[in-house]
Amino acid sequence: MTAPATNDAALGADLADLKAKVTQRLVSFLDEKECHARDHGLVPEVPAMIRAHITAGGKRIRPLLCLAGWQAVAGPAVPPMVVQTAAALEMYQAFALIHDDIIDNCLTRRSQPTVHRALARRYAHSNDPRHLGLSAALLIGNMALTWSDELVTTADLPGHRRTVVSGLLDAMREEMHYGQYLDLLATLGPLDDRQTPLIVARYKTAKYTVERPLHIGAALAGADTGFLDALSRFALPLGDAFQLRDDLLGLFGDPGATGKPVFDDLREGKRTLVLAVAVGEANQDQKDFLTEHVGDAGLSDDTARQVLDIITSTGAPATVERMIVERHAEAVAALDDKVLPRAAVATLRRIADDAVHRES
Amino acid sequence: MTAPATNDAALGADLADLKAKVTQRLVSFLDEKECHARDHGLVPEVPAMIRAHITAGGKRIRPLLCLAGWQAVAGPAVPPMVVQTAAALEMYQAFALIHDDIIDNCLTRRSQPTVHRALARRYAHSNDPRHLGLSAALLIGNMALTWSDELVTTADLPGHRRTVVSGLLDAMREEMHYGQYLDLLATLGPLDDRQTPLIVARYKTAKYTVERPLHIGAALAGADTGFLDALSRFALPLGDAFQLRDDLLGLFGDPGATGKPVFDDLREGKRTLVLAVAVGEANQDQKDFLTEHVGDAGLSDDTARQVLDIITSTGAPATVERMIVERHAEAVAALDDKVLPRAAVATLRRIADDAVHRES
Repeated sequence: MTAPATNDAALGADLADLKAKVTQRLVSFLDEKECHARDHGLVPEVPAMIRAHITAGGKRIRPLLCLAGWQAVAGPAVPPMVVQTAAALEMYQAFALIHDDIIDNCLTRRSQPTVHRALARRYAHSNDPRHLGLSAALLIGNMALTWSDELVTTADLPGHRRTVVSGLLDAMREEMHYGQYLDLLATLGPLDDRQTPLIVARYKTAKYTVERPLHIGAALAGADTGFLDALSRFALPLGDAFQLRDDLLGLFGDPGATGKPVFDDLREGKRTLVLAVAVGEANQDQKDFLTEHVGDAGLSDDTARQVLDIITSTGAPATVERMIVERHAEAVAALDDKVLPRAAVATLRRIADDAVHRES
Repeated sequence: MTAPATNDAALGADLADLKAKVTQRLVSFLDEKECHARDHGLVPEVPAMIRAHITAGGKRIRPLLCLAGWQAVAGPAVPPMVVQTAAALEMYQAFALIHDDIIDNCLTRRSQPTVHRALARRYAHSNDPRHLGLSAALLIGNMALTWSDELVTTADLPGHRRTVVSGLLDAMREEMHYGQYLDLLATLGPLDDRQTPLIVARYKTAKYTVERPLHIGAALAGADTGFLDALSRFALPLGDAFQLRDDLLGLFGDPGATGKPVFDDLREGKRTLVLAVAVGEANQDQKDFLTEHVGDAGLSDDTARQVLDIITSTGAPATVERMIVERHAEAVAALDDKVLPRAAVATLRRIADDAVHRES
């Protein structure tokens, strides 16, 4: 049990310590699953692949927000049941990413081959390695989801808290799936649609990544509706800003830092606000060029660089940077709510800064 | 509230009534989800596709077993919380089938296009309709799983029962995923392996389809471990028999009754016990023929019929029929356990007969 951190360095150390606790719980859970699989003639590669995926990287933003939500109500000490619930959110994220990578045909994640790609290679001698890799990854993703549930079931939550947390988890999952579905269908719509990327960001990121993890942590500690609403006023603009930052990193980020291949978002034709703004602001020649090349899976690196130059020249990245600053400021202003204890505010402020000022 | 059925016709009517109750709960749940999606600018096709999948058919064997498990302990009346938990098992099965059809490249289920196929058609104007259909179906499957959880969360189960049921659900899901994964990898192994199909049947069918639904229903009513063990002695051999029947129907069933295209299992190269026995008993010419053609996605109907003739001539289907009879008898004998009340035994006996003597 530690006192609340009073300065920035101590706060950073606290967050690193909590992150390590979550990872440790996940690794020990998956180690046990691997032993169980070996002992019962099942398939040890299922837990092993999930563990490799989790330990290859990740910011652990959802578990950290869950822990911050708890601390905002209950103070700095985090009992094992809270660490385990936070770990469940990261296990859920493993499921989401493994499936996302199938949907987006991604080859690399966290600088490693994606799960479906790694399995296609492992079973290269099969009739259809690509489909076998996809199918196996689909099942491994589903297993991660099952184990996320098991982490919650076995976290030993008090009965009444358990019910509230389950309801929040159900809501989080529904919101995330709708966000993903809207994102998928968005690729059928016009490139300059600015509304849809914001709705997708709201469901897929603001609610799933920021608001619900905070709610779950706070609800574990018995927060009432007024408290959860105060957290939402911080969480939603921050989550929007987080997604806008992600979109910029997807186009302009350093692949060495993001762990994702450069130009993937362009080749996939991912609908982002920065793209919509660029297309809206472009002259006709630029617009034709963007329309021709964005979403072309075979886009050359040279052409991709030209696409990025056009996007930059329209001023769209600068516009999105301003939107990030505004939303970050709105989130930070929401921390003035008197419902939120001062110690919690320092942590939330730090998480907000990290979420918005990042390179990976 | 009805008295326990005392004859076969009344028992059949009771089961039909329970089945209708479960379907009704699922339809009203999904209708509400569709209204919610319309009201919130989300995607009504997500609940609509799941509802279409569920109402197109299905034996509802898992919910019926869950209700039978409850009735075995608590008597004939089934309160709404039990119907809702049973409905959650069918919603879970919708998730499992939608994903299974992606993995198996199935085009038809319950005489309708599979979800991924229907969506590929709906979005035929997209760049890659096949992948979009697959991705959308993957997400719709995940949503069905989420809603299965929500049905349990909102079933208003007493706290201590809820914990036991959640643990059983977690176990059920883990077993099913391992069974599916083993099934997937089995296609890499030899055609005459008789062991693996039995392990897969145990995990993917006996435990998932029969044992766990009975356990969940009984646990809802407060059954102790001894009672659950007695149910397992009935459930596991019955579940094995159920899978063996499925395998025979997959090869020799009437597609008009099964709703699945004929020869699909052969083209997919599905590893079943009947195939393993046939390959083991075949002479060299037959074995070469089977090895060449089983698993050939482009298998002609004529060649498929020759493959079936060879399988029949080896005596494998008759061997498997005998195994079904033995396992059915073992399950029925387990019903003599004095732990199980007589009224429950009649229902379980009827379910066992229906599971084994069926054409779809």
